[in-house]
Amino acid sequence: MTLPARAQEPGTTTTIHTDGAGTVRRTVLHGGLRVITETLPTVRSAAFGIWAAVGSRDEAVADAGASHYLEHVLFKGTERRSALEISAAVDAVGGDLNAFTAKEYTCYYARVLDADLPLAVDVVSDMVAASLNRPEDVEAERGVILEEIHMRDDDPGDLIHDEFALALYGDTPLGRPILGTEESINTLSRDRIHGYYREHYVPSELVVSAAGNVDHDEVVGLVSRAWAGRLTGDAPPAPPRLDGAPAPVTPTTRVLDKDTEQAHIVLGSAGVARTDDRRFALGVLNAALGGGMSSRLFQEIREKRGLAYSVYSYTAQYADSGIFGVYAGCQPGKVDEVLSICRDEVAKAVDGITDEELVRGKGQLRGTMVLGLEDTGSRMSRIGKSELVYESLLPVNDVLARIDAVTLDDVRAVARDVLAAPQALTVIGPVGDHDFAA
Amino acid sequence: MTLPARAQEPGTTTTIHTDGAGTVRRTVLHGGLRVITETLPTVRSAAFGIWAAVGSRDEAVADAGASHYLEHVLFKGTERRSALEISAAVDAVGGDLNAFTAKEYTCYYARVLDADLPLAVDVVSDMVAASLNRPEDVEAERGVILEEIHMRDDDPGDLIHDEFALALYGDTPLGRPILGTEESINTLSRDRIHGYYREHYVPSELVVSAAGNVDHDEVVGLVSRAWAGRLTGDAPPAPPRLDGAPAPVTPTTRVLDKDTEQAHIVLGSAGVARTDDRRFALGVLNAALGGGMSSRLFQEIREKRGLAYSVYSYTAQYADSGIFGVYAGCQPGKVDEVLSICRDEVAKAVDGITDEELVRGKGQLRGTMVLGLEDTGSRMSRIGKSELVYESLLPVNDVLARIDAVTLDDVRAVARDVLAAPQALTVIGPVGDHDFAA
Repeated sequence: MTLPARAQEPGTTTTIHTDGAGTVRRTVLHGGLRVITETLPTVRSAAFGIWAAVGSRDEAVADAGASHYLEHVLFKGTERRSALEISAAVDAVGGDLNAFTAKEYTCYYARVLDADLPLAVDVVSDMVAASLNRPEDVEAERGVILEEIHMRDDDPGDLIHDEFALALYGDTPLGRPILGTEESINTLSRDRIHGYYREHYVPSELVVSAAGNVDHDEVVGLVSRAWAGRLTGDAPPAPPRLDGAPAPVTPTTRVLDKDTEQAHIVLGSAGVARTDDRRFALGVLNAALGGGMSSRLFQEIREKRGLAYSVYSYTAQYADSGIFGVYAGCQPGKVDEVLSICRDEVAKAVDGITDEELVRGKGQLRGTMVLGLEDTGSRMSRIGKSELVYESLLPVNDVLARIDAVTLDDVRAVARDVLAAPQALTVIGPVGDHDFAA
Repeated sequence: MTLPARAQEPGTTTTIHTDGAGTVRRTVLHGGLRVITETLPTVRSAAFGIWAAVGSRDEAVADAGASHYLEHVLFKGTERRSALEISAAVDAVGGDLNAFTAKEYTCYYARVLDADLPLAVDVVSDMVAASLNRPEDVEAERGVILEEIHMRDDDPGDLIHDEFALALYGDTPLGRPILGTEESINTLSRDRIHGYYREHYVPSELVVSAAGNVDHDEVVGLVSRAWAGRLTGDAPPAPPRLDGAPAPVTPTTRVLDKDTEQAHIVLGSAGVARTDDRRFALGVLNAALGGGMSSRLFQEIREKRGLAYSVYSYTAQYADSGIFGVYAGCQPGKVDEVLSICRDEVAKAVDGITDEELVRGKGQLRGTMVLGLEDTGSRMSRIGKSELVYESLLPVNDVLARIDAVTLDDVRAVARDVLAAPQALTVIGPVGDHDFAA
């Protein structure tokens, strides 16, 4: 168990652990800015990211979409660079510069060849630390975000997950879409966006992470220079988001009658929170129920009956809540049959899984995790996100041990808690006012 | 320049080159089966694939979609394994087992931890060499493929690329969609599918490739055992697809009036063939015109005017032809404005690009290529696909040298050839009978 960053003296460095291929180190700079790196000396690339502890669930109704809107605006220019200069710098070295906004955090990152790390640190830091958020840039980006909303609306396999969050959590911060709505985007002002930036993008609420062929001290030096003049005071790093009162779960059924070729279904319930010890057992359960081609849902719906091309189950974790969901896309005329199989399989799994499924589910989680960590971007994300949202970083070997320790009883217990809980349902398709009551 | 595989004696191995991190070796087995590997000793994973020299452009009208249909059926069971046993074997080790069908080839692959390579070789080889193609499996998969077609139809950003191929090549093998049509899928019989399999899945038309922490001789041994009894005779490996008479290009305008939120546009022309020396210059031109955030199209349409979220240009290569296309998704009411900017930018680029864009475009191609090759799956794809479709494998350093050698004159020459050629146009959206004539 590593000390949380807020117990670490500003200006000091600690080695968190050495784990398989990589060594993880953390420095806390003045102002509370954390720099965490994982050195993987056998690769030739470096991934660099800055994580902000703010996302769509921090938004009031009138600000819906502000975190994501701001993410866009940060690409539009700084005191030192125009939008073109930001993108041209990274394009010129063939790097990948991007960002994403989630419900509880926002991340800006670049993946580059190791020799180009100084450039990546300078550009991404500049965007996050010195954004101008000019009124004309906020205006130009409004149209872009409206088009992003329309693109989401044109893809029912994407739209349905936003609809499902509303069905499960209702019109609450966790239920509302990350993109905001046409109405909220049309009314958000430059002052609100800029205020949001000034309030949330402070060093103590940010985490800098780098992984790949990087040297910790070099990264700290580059970050210190890029943030020069902005890292003052002895504010400790902000603690992870409180997991006090859990988000209210109010499952409903949402049906969107739409002229699509397929009916798209998500059926699900509240899962477990990010720090919940049951998350490893739920991972195994998810693998057995709908996590791969050998899973029950894939076998019953696609392999045996040919009713769907895409069918799977999934989980999502937040500070105080989570989602367990099942997705299927099928012929509109088969929606009752497919939904009935989904409900049956979920109900059957309340009694747990077989020995063979337990072994296979553990192997699947283990292999997927280890294979995923060969990518420097995944490594950067693991340490950066963990530093932001957990009290401490669990070494990969500890995660593997936790997966290995899951028993049939653990799976049965979490299945009873999650799968037998009240269900929300969302259907998008040409289904009129069809009644989907179970 | 390496000797083509068909000049190599069956049962012999040749070292093709040692290139940066990896050494590439090829063995030709009896029956003409090629095994090509790239050893990357610093990784812990292995990617294994089998490539078949058949795709949708080999299909008669009545067989449209047969290559892709067969790809699905190969997951349904062999003499030794049921569909569940195929998927469970790879799920149990957390591997990624999948396949894809293109216009000119089909690939089956697994990515696993290095210790699980023997399993991957055995399962993928079994699927490809010993598929049963039972009538009941062909029937069950028919529904799955129809749902895949419906899913594509529900995603206009995906559908538009199939529509564009029809607009450029017409109702020809290269113009028709890889998935086939509802009509062709409904009429394809088990006998046709099985005949297609027996005709095309012969050792001399297949390439086996592996990359990662693999030993060439071990891979050859594993493949020889997995294919035991099927590798006989002295048939040489098949040569690459002939690039004789180029595919006919008959550009038209296709407008699909559809009730979507956005209008989706692809504007383009015939590009260059896979072996065309101009491909490197076209890559640089594509980068400058629409390849990244600093590109002309991104700057003009998204950055300055906020008219689109997604806007980019792209290229595709075939044995005897290619595509250069520009995509944008925008408000239906802005489609004329966006299309007009696309046409202007394409027309302007006929005169070439700037020095700065040349340098940046080269950097972008170089960096993207080198960063992409850190993934064992990409390495496996590069050598497997190259062995199938080129006379010889170009080492990474040679590709980088070819990119580096591109001049402003080269870019101007290919721009004149490609961008000034007759254009095809596809629009999907609520546009009624709007006239899109230039």
